Amino acid sequence: MKFAKIPMATISRLSIYSRTLQELMEEEVDVISSERLAKQCAVNPAQIRKDLAYFGEFGVRGVGYRVGDLLNQIKEILGLNRPWNLGMVGVGNLGSALIRHANFLRHGYVFTAAFDVDPQKVGRRLPSGVVIKHLEEVDEVVKDRDVHVGVITTPSSAAQSVANQLVLAGINGILNFAPIQIQVPNCCHVENVDFTIKLDSIAYHLSSNG
Amino acid sequence: MKFAKIPMATISRLSIYSRTLQELMEEEVDVISSERLAKQCAVNPAQIRKDLAYFGEFGVRGVGYRVGDLLNQIKEILGLNRPWNLGMVGVGNLGSALIRHANFLRHGYVFTAAFDVDPQKVGRRLPSGVVIKHLEEVDEVVKDRDVHVGVITTPSSAAQSVANQLVLAGINGILNFAPIQIQVPNCCHVENVDFTIKLDSIAYHLSSNG
Repeated sequence: MKFAKIPMATISRLSIYSRTLQELMEEEVDVISSERLAKQCAVNPAQIRKDLAYFGEFGVRGVGYRVGDLLNQIKEILGLNRPWNLGMVGVGNLGSALIRHANFLRHGYVFTAAFDVDPQKVGRRLPSGVVIKHLEEVDEVVKDRDVHVGVITTPSSAAQSVANQLVLAGINGILNFAPIQIQVPNCCHVENVDFTIKLDSIAYHLSSNG
Repeated sequence: MKFAKIPMATISRLSIYSRTLQELMEEEVDVISSERLAKQCAVNPAQIRKDLAYFGEFGVRGVGYRVGDLLNQIKEILGLNRPWNLGMVGVGNLGSALIRHANFLRHGYVFTAAFDVDPQKVGRRLPSGVVIKHLEEVDEVVKDRDVHVGVITTPSSAAQSVANQLVLAGINGILNFAPIQIQVPNCCHVENVDFTIKLDSIAYHLSSNG
């Protein structure tokens, strides 16, 4: 699906709406007012309406949103009406913890491959059944295991070279946990996860309010 | 330090600038043009100037920014000219991986306490020297170990009750890795880390460009 240029903040909020809607589905809520949905998502109702307006008309005036319908529509917008396969590169402490984290699978993300360069790790079978492969085999494994997105949890010093290998293997999306800015061609989309940046925001609030 | 209402996006970008400036310091770069700094931070130069303008005048016209000075000024703005002590709640796979992650210490964040409710874990000494305490002891430990920020890596079902206990123990900042929205009083600032929201942005880009 193609739309006009959408702000990244809108895309992130759509994810948050979909998380809340999924919880509501699980609680068997059928319809929710825009006010209540907004409150549960910790945004204001006008923001939800504005975000959704990029993609068409949603909700029923005086009634609110049908939870299941809105969830499906947001999933379609985000491209989440299908599973996405992930390949982990770097099966250290953090990588292992992430592969075991149930939240990925809950949202349709499946680790179908894992890579390392440590001979002690290569060949080991993870609890999920995935066997750790050597990074040298990335080209074949990405094809065989239909990997769409690379997840980098290597040390910073290796992250750029790993990103290069992933791009050459045909990967166009990277979730980067290594605390450096990696450079990729325009065809590839990178999202960085740096926990300490969130801590800086907390530090800022505690200092300026203190 | 108190300033006018600053957008959260500006605060996050200040963190990113400080990461890049720290790398430049380590590479012994003394001065950097606003163009080169912007490129390394993956933003445009006008954005950096706008973000910094909230806090005063920085940089020298025709020269650029003095790396060490700007880094110190940004650290002062964010409240990072002092160390911050963290208390981890939930020492499972993810919690253990985070405690061992060198990136926290690099940016002045020190885990001085760790909590769990599992009798198998309570009393165990982590590689950092911190002994895992029972969550029942949170009030005393927060005081003894001078904990400023709580880091929640428990299952979702426990996260709200843990947040309540942290707030009662005097904690005003929480980094929440559990995939639910936790509710806290206004005196407390929460930042949520949900990796799958970043993956949704990648999925969106791969779909809409596909």
